[in-house]
Amino acid sequence: MKSAKKASYILAASDESLRNRILIEFATQLDKSRAEIAEANARDLKLAEEALISGSMYKRLILDDRKISVLIKGIEDLIKTPDPLADVDLKRELDNGLVLSRKRVPIGVIGVIFESRPDALVQISSLCVKSGNVVVLKGGKEALYTNRRLFEILQGAVRLVDEKYTQCMHLVETREEIKQLLAMNEYIDLMIPRGSNQLVSYIQNNTKIPVLGHADGICHMYIDSSADPEMAVKLVYDAKCQYPAVCNALETLLIHYEAAEKILPSICAALDKVEWRGDEKTRSIVTMKPASGEDWSTEYNDLVLSIKTVGSVVEAVDHINTFGSHHTDAIVANDKTASDYFVRNVDSAAVLHNCSTRFSDGFRFGFGAEVGISTNKIHARGPVGIEGLTIYKYILEGNGQDVAPYADGTKAFTHKDLI
Amino acid sequence: MKSAKKASYILAASDESLRNRILIEFATQLDKSRAEIAEANARDLKLAEEALISGSMYKRLILDDRKISVLIKGIEDLIKTPDPLADVDLKRELDNGLVLSRKRVPIGVIGVIFESRPDALVQISSLCVKSGNVVVLKGGKEALYTNRRLFEILQGAVRLVDEKYTQCMHLVETREEIKQLLAMNEYIDLMIPRGSNQLVSYIQNNTKIPVLGHADGICHMYIDSSADPEMAVKLVYDAKCQYPAVCNALETLLIHYEAAEKILPSICAALDKVEWRGDEKTRSIVTMKPASGEDWSTEYNDLVLSIKTVGSVVEAVDHINTFGSHHTDAIVANDKTASDYFVRNVDSAAVLHNCSTRFSDGFRFGFGAEVGISTNKIHARGPVGIEGLTIYKYILEGNGQDVAPYADGTKAFTHKDLI
Repeated sequence: MKSAKKASYILAASDESLRNRILIEFATQLDKSRAEIAEANARDLKLAEEALISGSMYKRLILDDRKISVLIKGIEDLIKTPDPLADVDLKRELDNGLVLSRKRVPIGVIGVIFESRPDALVQISSLCVKSGNVVVLKGGKEALYTNRRLFEILQGAVRLVDEKYTQCMHLVETREEIKQLLAMNEYIDLMIPRGSNQLVSYIQNNTKIPVLGHADGICHMYIDSSADPEMAVKLVYDAKCQYPAVCNALETLLIHYEAAEKILPSICAALDKVEWRGDEKTRSIVTMKPASGEDWSTEYNDLVLSIKTVGSVVEAVDHINTFGSHHTDAIVANDKTASDYFVRNVDSAAVLHNCSTRFSDGFRFGFGAEVGISTNKIHARGPVGIEGLTIYKYILEGNGQDVAPYADGTKAFTHKDLI
Repeated sequence: MKSAKKASYILAASDESLRNRILIEFATQLDKSRAEIAEANARDLKLAEEALISGSMYKRLILDDRKISVLIKGIEDLIKTPDPLADVDLKRELDNGLVLSRKRVPIGVIGVIFESRPDALVQISSLCVKSGNVVVLKGGKEALYTNRRLFEILQGAVRLVDEKYTQCMHLVETREEIKQLLAMNEYIDLMIPRGSNQLVSYIQNNTKIPVLGHADGICHMYIDSSADPEMAVKLVYDAKCQYPAVCNALETLLIHYEAAEKILPSICAALDKVEWRGDEKTRSIVTMKPASGEDWSTEYNDLVLSIKTVGSVVEAVDHINTFGSHHTDAIVANDKTASDYFVRNVDSAAVLHNCSTRFSDGFRFGFGAEVGISTNKIHARGPVGIEGLTIYKYILEGNGQDVAPYADGTKAFTHKDLI
């Protein structure tokens, strides 16, 4: 990975036009190679059938013509996106003729470990090129042939643009190499896992490289006593049922006991395909399976919902900060005191009021292509756009200034912001 | 540390006025307790004398009346600093009545491990209060009594303002507790080490908590063939000699061989108190000790300078990116092509042109109180001000929107920026 680090310096110094030319070539070569990709993908799918992999995994593994078109469209959108490295967000005169600026630069080398979906290889490689980062890719073994083919196509595209950037993309294929990757904190600056909670947890627990992402998505919705009943039913339904397999879907419903008596029967009626698991008070209103202590910290990713009644918004917030995963949590309330308290006190990346948890997403937030959703408390939090792949450097331009006269008080700083 | 995490939610929701009132009380109580602090400090100093600790460590251990006044002045400046949590840097309409905002919030619980200087306890606690973070402090055993006294004074000040915030400061005193702290990634969000390279490396290598800081500060200055000779001599002198014990002092001088013949004798004459260690070419110009391979990756923190001649700015940049610590590096050149190449290609937190490496510092950059200098590639890089102790959260306000109509295409996002 030493070569990846070296390549990162070359790519970091590149112009936007070069990076966009690579992306244009990505789109062109993917379009030209549809038949080859289909062939490689068919090989993976055949092996997957023989290995009797699960239906949902098989579905994610498919990379058909339609999905390739979506990928190409994504690259074309990315080309039009403003250069994430153009920004200079600080320009300050420290003294006459001594000017400090802070400029966006790429992070360096990004390690990406992903499962099943070969689309991820193309998406993340494109984001890395746009932001000037070298990418080291490790895909799931179930997509071995598709990933290998895609990698060859993309690296070939880089080579067509300029031979000297070829080392900006690396592919790692064996499981043993993951361990080696995770130990390379000297050469890899950021690790992005894309896959199951198990994969993310494993990576978080086995590397000193910073990891961007989230393991759990235990999202809550709290229905206050001031909630509009119709809105409450609609939002619980959407948050739980619209797409239950994703990280921003609802897992635990907290409901004020006054609201519970009024609204819970309608909620349960609307969520008739969902398995409900409730605390004692909840079960005194609607008959259901009892919730165990474990339910409060479980991400079902399925049509299962745990339900708990609470006495106040304070109790709801305590529950969320204790059992949640600091990902996305929502309140349904018309009382402003309650919603203000909730928004201010819930320690999550995204806190929502009177709307569905399912909005917590980079595309819906208008960030363009999404790098991932982060529950980290540093660097990038919540849905992360391409800026999450950048950092800054300070540049100080002088005309011969030494520190001595400022240290002994002969000269003083002006510290005048120029932008 | 569970109580620290709980306290972090309470402090995060506090108003600026509360946080400033605590800081006012910090200043008042420190001023009132000068005699007590002197007594505790005398005790530590006596033990230090008996233990025959080094002169520089003894000096750092002293907390006299003058240093207390400096601390109080620092707190007063911090009170006047704008609230670091006031900022809302994104406000975007996703659709009619659905508004996203991104608000600054504290990171949560900050662990601080520091050596010798008891001043650090007061400085970092003040920064944490201002930014709404809970602080867990572990000082060096040589300052045990002073640290304990200072902690009691500050926590007492918090209690005077409002009993419920008392858990916002924690002190850890034994070495065994460090190991426990480093394992508490569930409760501590960021670790800030303040001390020797050994301490920082130890912490970086023994925790899953993100660490903000830098181990080495191997700073370079490259003298181009186009450099003004007088400027070169002045800047090398300042960078190496003005304060050699600090992280932004010069360790390796790279000099173009043409410049070496012209300027090196004057540089060495000016740095007559410095031990020079040169490569072969350097030694053919000025007689000195040979540099070994190890010299290129050594931070001397002393009046020692390694010197290497290079054939071009490209070679200089390669050396810096290979052997440097990505902290601070400077070029002295009048040729714009050379300085542009250097600034663009050196992968360091601070890259300087025609000025001394010693400017790379939070106070000199105009950031107010400095949290530290970071060589991380994510979150905060270079000199870090109080914003380094903050992160953001997303807040989405709606009036009953579910995701379903946006997912099926019935409704479309407007994504209109409101600020």
